[in-house]
Amino acid sequence: MDSPEFQLDWDRERRTGVAEAVFCQGKSPDQIECIVEAALTDGRRLLLTRLSGAAHATLRTGTQDVLDYDPSSSTAVLGGGIALAATGIGIVAAGTSDMAVAREAQRTLAFGGHRAEIIADVGVAGLWRLLARLDELRACRVLIAVAGMEGALFSVLAGLVAAPVIAVPASVGYGVAEGGKAALSSALASCAPGLVVVNIDNGFGAAAAAIKMLRAAG
Amino acid sequence: MDSPEFQLDWDRERRTGVAEAVFCQGKSPDQIECIVEAALTDGRRLLLTRLSGAAHATLRTGTQDVLDYDPSSSTAVLGGGIALAATGIGIVAAGTSDMAVAREAQRTLAFGGHRAEIIADVGVAGLWRLLARLDELRACRVLIAVAGMEGALFSVLAGLVAAPVIAVPASVGYGVAEGGKAALSSALASCAPGLVVVNIDNGFGAAAAAIKMLRAAG
Amino acid sequence: MDSPEFQLDWDRERRTGVAEAVFCQGKSPDQIECIVEAALTDGRRLLLTRLSGAAHATLRTGTQDVLDYDPSSSTAVLGGGIALAATGIGIVAAGTSDMAVAREAQRTLAFGGHRAEIIADVGVAGLWRLLARLDELRACRVLIAVAGMEGALFSVLAGLVAAPVIAVPASVGYGVAEGGKAALSSALASCAPGLVVVNIDNGFGAAAAAIKMLRAAG
Amino acid sequence: MDSPEFQLDWDRERRTGVAEAVFCQGKSPDQIECIVEAALTDGRRLLLTRLSGAAHATLRTGTQDVLDYDPSSSTAVLGGGIALAATGIGIVAAGTSDMAVAREAQRTLAFGGHRAEIIADVGVAGLWRLLARLDELRACRVLIAVAGMEGALFSVLAGLVAAPVIAVPASVGYGVAEGGKAALSSALASCAPGLVVVNIDNGFGAAAAAIKMLRAAG
Amino acid sequence: MDSPEFQLDWDRERRTGVAEAVFCQGKSPDQIECIVEAALTDGRRLLLTRLSGAAHATLRTGTQDVLDYDPSSSTAVLGGGIALAATGIGIVAAGTSDMAVAREAQRTLAFGGHRAEIIADVGVAGLWRLLARLDELRACRVLIAVAGMEGALFSVLAGLVAAPVIAVPASVGYGVAEGGKAALSSALASCAPGLVVVNIDNGFGAAAAAIKMLRAAG
Amino acid sequence: MDSPEFQLDWDRERRTGVAEAVFCQGKSPDQIECIVEAALTDGRRLLLTRLSGAAHATLRTGTQDVLDYDPSSSTAVLGGGIALAATGIGIVAAGTSDMAVAREAQRTLAFGGHRAEIIADVGVAGLWRLLARLDELRACRVLIAVAGMEGALFSVLAGLVAAPVIAVPASVGYGVAEGGKAALSSALASCAPGLVVVNIDNGFGAAAAAIKMLRAAG
Amino acid sequence: MDSPEFQLDWDRERRTGVAEAVFCQGKSPDQIECIVEAALTDGRRLLLTRLSGAAHATLRTGTQDVLDYDPSSSTAVLGGGIALAATGIGIVAAGTSDMAVAREAQRTLAFGGHRAEIIADVGVAGLWRLLARLDELRACRVLIAVAGMEGALFSVLAGLVAAPVIAVPASVGYGVAEGGKAALSSALASCAPGLVVVNIDNGFGAAAAAIKMLRAAG
Amino acid sequence: MDSPEFQLDWDRERRTGVAEAVFCQGKSPDQIECIVEAALTDGRRLLLTRLSGAAHATLRTGTQDVLDYDPSSSTAVLGGGIALAATGIGIVAAGTSDMAVAREAQRTLAFGGHRAEIIADVGVAGLWRLLARLDELRACRVLIAVAGMEGALFSVLAGLVAAPVIAVPASVGYGVAEGGKAALSSALASCAPGLVVVNIDNGFGAAAAAIKMLRAAG
Repeated sequence: MDSPEFQLDWDRERRTGVAEAVFCQGKSPDQIECIVEAALTDGRRLLLTRLSGAAHATLRTGTQDVLDYDPSSSTAVLGGGIALAATGIGIVAAGTSDMAVAREAQRTLAFGGHRAEIIADVGVAGLWRLLARLDELRACRVLIAVAGMEGALFSVLAGLVAAPVIAVPASVGYGVAEGGKAALSSALASCAPGLVVVNIDNGFGAAAAAIKMLRAAG
Repeated sequence: MDSPEFQLDWDRERRTGVAEAVFCQGKSPDQIECIVEAALTDGRRLLLTRLSGAAHATLRTGTQDVLDYDPSSSTAVLGGGIALAATGIGIVAAGTSDMAVAREAQRTLAFGGHRAEIIADVGVAGLWRLLARLDELRACRVLIAVAGMEGALFSVLAGLVAAPVIAVPASVGYGVAEGGKAALSSALASCAPGLVVVNIDNGFGAAAAAIKMLRAAG
Repeated sequence: MDSPEFQLDWDRERRTGVAEAVFCQGKSPDQIECIVEAALTDGRRLLLTRLSGAAHATLRTGTQDVLDYDPSSSTAVLGGGIALAATGIGIVAAGTSDMAVAREAQRTLAFGGHRAEIIADVGVAGLWRLLARLDELRACRVLIAVAGMEGALFSVLAGLVAAPVIAVPASVGYGVAEGGKAALSSALASCAPGLVVVNIDNGFGAAAAAIKMLRAAG
Repeated sequence: MDSPEFQLDWDRERRTGVAEAVFCQGKSPDQIECIVEAALTDGRRLLLTRLSGAAHATLRTGTQDVLDYDPSSSTAVLGGGIALAATGIGIVAAGTSDMAVAREAQRTLAFGGHRAEIIADVGVAGLWRLLARLDELRACRVLIAVAGMEGALFSVLAGLVAAPVIAVPASVGYGVAEGGKAALSSALASCAPGLVVVNIDNGFGAAAAAIKMLRAAG
Repeated sequence: MDSPEFQLDWDRERRTGVAEAVFCQGKSPDQIECIVEAALTDGRRLLLTRLSGAAHATLRTGTQDVLDYDPSSSTAVLGGGIALAATGIGIVAAGTSDMAVAREAQRTLAFGGHRAEIIADVGVAGLWRLLARLDELRACRVLIAVAGMEGALFSVLAGLVAAPVIAVPASVGYGVAEGGKAALSSALASCAPGLVVVNIDNGFGAAAAAIKMLRAAG
Repeated sequence: MDSPEFQLDWDRERRTGVAEAVFCQGKSPDQIECIVEAALTDGRRLLLTRLSGAAHATLRTGTQDVLDYDPSSSTAVLGGGIALAATGIGIVAAGTSDMAVAREAQRTLAFGGHRAEIIADVGVAGLWRLLARLDELRACRVLIAVAGMEGALFSVLAGLVAAPVIAVPASVGYGVAEGGKAALSSALASCAPGLVVVNIDNGFGAAAAAIKMLRAAG
Repeated sequence: MDSPEFQLDWDRERRTGVAEAVFCQGKSPDQIECIVEAALTDGRRLLLTRLSGAAHATLRTGTQDVLDYDPSSSTAVLGGGIALAATGIGIVAAGTSDMAVAREAQRTLAFGGHRAEIIADVGVAGLWRLLARLDELRACRVLIAVAGMEGALFSVLAGLVAAPVIAVPASVGYGVAEGGKAALSSALASCAPGLVVVNIDNGFGAAAAAIKMLRAAG
Repeated sequence: MDSPEFQLDWDRERRTGVAEAVFCQGKSPDQIECIVEAALTDGRRLLLTRLSGAAHATLRTGTQDVLDYDPSSSTAVLGGGIALAATGIGIVAAGTSDMAVAREAQRTLAFGGHRAEIIADVGVAGLWRLLARLDELRACRVLIAVAGMEGALFSVLAGLVAAPVIAVPASVGYGVAEGGKAALSSALASCAPGLVVVNIDNGFGAAAAAIKMLRAAG
């Protein structure tokens, strides 16, 4: 007989500072339900990411009932929220279409107890919108920036603040920008020193990195 | 017997507003010398681009003597300069390494009688450098912008001025920016409407387009 | 509490000569409706692009009623049309399949008050079709050319006219032409000097650039 | 003990209509000399392609003596030329920089007894140059077209003649055209039906195909 | 008012030896119907390619009635078939999944009056299947070969026959073979001289080229 | 008349040690049914791969009845299972989402008489999960490893065991990992010597290779 | 007259926490010397990166004299070193070939006053080498990891420590790993949450990010 | 103080069945000499790969003296050869240009005590050359196949023999075959089941895998 199809890594939080989470894209409803059940059995909180509305709807009612599902970020939380504290993490979104990724970061931070505001629609084609928020941005200890298209926001922002900036290229765009590839290249090639990058649409990873950075301060 | 290896298109200027020019990369010294000779015979002025210092040095002294060679832009002019007029074209270079391409544009414009200043080293990682020159930039009727790396300058600039901006991605950078590909994607994917793009390192083409745009005004 | 998800850049027209427009692909019905409402509140005209028939159909009736929607270009206009003037911009489409992109350009121009005719199905495989329209083409001050497949039209056209030519590669084709990549390379690599390029399918951007070029003439 | 490092396929001509030839790039001088010696021993004629001037110079004098070397095409022939006949194959080169590839095709044809003229520098940016040669082009039974940059010549030419056109993309260009990739895409994506394509810079292969096509007529 | 959206090139057959045909992918039902009507009015036969079953079903009954539609090749013929003659063109398909492309070639040939047999499922992983058909293959004057996956069939076949071989890479495969890119590279990089290539899935273009090759014999 | 569309290669097993199998993706229901019928007529067992649930459902009931279909691996077996023996092949899956590919390998092995366990969810982000199974892994004679995302499992595993490791990159992931390309590069570039690789998602090919490796031992 | 070719951004340190530095690749000796002179005049310390041994040798003796040049990292420092403090940043290099990049990070950190040890040759093909250093690694507040080839080290390391890990893909490898592309994909696609990435070979950027992260702690 | 720059993994052979080897490309002469010295000190045999003639020549005479250097494969052996046994591994090279890679495999096998013959120049464009060696090939227990260009040899060979075939794509070719990418795709996409693949030019890795496969038999 085969071994079970998953092994939850409850030790991860202690080891790496970031709790176990489940990436749901590509997993069957059965697999997701088994994982949720295992977490319930072990008495653990759990974050589920990339759980589309359609996928969420195929879960059994019992499973849906124990999950706090947010369609705008395609995330679900098992085990309830915890008290939030404003720890100095800010999220910047270049355009309205980048909000889904920004919210994934926001929900991941909230799962870890961090309250973070999203400063939205400040793309550099209208530079005044970004400059108007400069004081808020400079007050943050870590910034997560989400941008699709050509991703010029990353370089401009990183040149204006002292906080580390985590660039999240978003799969927003068409033609050469399709799938977020242009924004990703932009982020990596940036001439603004100290910018760091995660995979396209990886709001979760950016949030995890931000949490680790705050801990580095400890 | 074969036909001759080249046919100069002296009619081009009348037809398209841009004079015949010769792209020297990949041509043998013999081929370049024959072309120069033909132009001399026909009593024509001629612009040679992508003529590297090494290639220029292999030409016969006689040929070198009739050419006004500029190593910083790898261009040569046959037939002397003409009177320059300030017609409203400006050139912006993001970094010092972008100067060779910017100078190719400048020399091509000068060949056509247009005087254009280069505003250099105004990349967006230090945004104040660009903003300090805003009045000069806004006074231009057409802008040529040269940038390598992530090319964020293109979007920021196009969002600040009413003149059409011609983006020239430069092959400056390494890793994902190697060969200018990241800057090219950035320019094409820009969320600043009205930005137009030419091939990587194509300072000549940007200058030709700028001249055509001024003529459109006529 | 988060800031609002969008900030309309009403100042854009004064600053750059091109009015604010909204790219709808990737935005939720809610987001689009909020934006339309904000424009109504501010008493502004607004152009919406990439609003597919399916997306348009999901909008509330009230929102649909205030929009002038054109399915062939997937654009909508809020605030009514304005008087059109023939200002010398022409649009060329290589094939029948390129019409959607050509119409996006045409609608964007009309939003800005420019009347532009589309000269259709003049791809170079049947060169006589293009040559038969040469007088009309040469009468234009700025040309927008839309072509998919191998995009050979761009180079041929730019070699025949003095007006600046803005190439819009179209995502028409299969195999190596899939998604418009072959036409894009063709446009950028063109040996016809003075050709400028925008992103694949970006009829909107080409129109914005054409308007800026006419202004450069001023 | 290992087998010998090469096995010449003398039967190839009988089987496929195209004689054995040796691609020299990447072979050591020793390997090339052994192959030439084997052909001499077997009393065979042999075509060597991609033998750069530098590589040719490293061969022993004895080997150099038996080879008819042509630096402009980087080809060498062992065993002497044969009588040439004009069999209706024409070669078209878009630009002066494409001549090396065009000459490789010409030499390969000559090795097989076919005399073919090169019509040079007829790129479509100056369309009149191509149209002026239309009668000559239409008189050919098979056409080989060599073009780098954006390769627009392929589509225009194939739309004008009844002969099959073999496109040879040339590695001439920079930026997106670097290495001939843009010209290759152009050739494959062409909207002119009946155009066929070989690998970048493969003048040899185009000539071999042209010979096969004439045989198909038999 | 705009010009009409299409211009049929009835002169094409006289000029290039290949009749006008209509590529339907990306065209609206309205556009296709207008084209069919125009051909009817002009009293012309017409070939329609890439007309999917779904697209065919959306046409008006009247239009469907005048078309001879073949779902296996997604082609339709207007104006009836003509007498077929066996002129020496053969079609080889590497696998069962390549049949749709092979049939597009077969239908295109039939539209032009050429009868061509398909030799199917002779991929080189079971070499005996190809070798068993060698006499038939060697009897052909021109061969069209269709293969997806790694496209090894192209090289093996071209090394066995004297006829020119036209490779049609098919979009059959997954992973690195997805979309036919691996088969395309294989065809272009082939070490079998004289192989020529068309775009992925372009059965129509291969047939057009084969017809042109037979004419070259004339 | 055309030849039949398929030729089953019953001799394959004798020749190569791996039985004929049918890749169903891209084949029509008719084609699949004809193949199954032919196998029944010839009295042969047959493995069908990439037969999606949707495709399986379109087959005639009669055909469905003779097939043992497994939706989790999208495989079907005709002709019944055979006795299984534990011959030393192990399968490792990095994550739960990789199970479909792992099961395709497992079913292919079972079709050939090999019983193989899947060790699941041992990705290296939680290294302890892999190290905990080291004894089992080291007991295997051949290992098949399935991983998507960044595929780091391949190198770590191959550095820990003496058995040959066959890497199967899985199309699990997003952004740069989309379609399995990152995992494929990882596997090929591995610094752990002796790792071998098959195409993305090719569980079938990995199993075939494992069987061949065991035979090499004979 | 043109403006000067460079504008040093002395304000950068105050604004972003990272001092101005000069990327020398692609700059002429003249340009570098002018920049050094300007820094001397302004009485500023300066870091020069990507100054190859060959480029360094072309500088005037006077310029060489004021620079502290390190060939192993291709960096130079103007203005002398400063006192170093061990602030908790560690550098990990997967292989000996990755040392040049690791040293660029180390020198950049030292320029800012941070002492950081390099833990070398701990690639995961020999996992014990990494595990043996686990205590040292876990004692760091921020880790910089340099790896070429398949970059599996990034995921393994990030799964073992709580500190943020900055991945620097190195251009070490061949085939699919050429230029560092495989390692870059690996880093971005990692399933270890909280890993952040900079451009290929960008040791400077990683160091700048590490410094910013420590400040975030303040 | 930093740790040493390398750590030799002497335990690797016991753990994985393949001895430690040193990849020299990208390492400095100093680094290579230190490694050789360490091996001498530890009394170990060592294989060095990718040690070009130029790099070998820069080593100190003392180091050169203890190495058995083979320029045709760019490998060196420290510690002398060992007795060779014919264990059933065969090497096939498609063309003469593939010999360097084939010899790297041969030398790696010899370092491990395996004698393997190279069957050279049996590319499938002349199929008879391969078929003539079929008995020898079928007698092998494991086959390593090296091919550049389009790599059709891999599929044909794997369809003819029962032994596992390890494909080594070689960086031989131009245009789409440049750098070995076409051959790599061909190998991975092969329709011949059971073919496994290593990185481009990785003769060392193929040999290591072959040795592991023989052990699997044990």
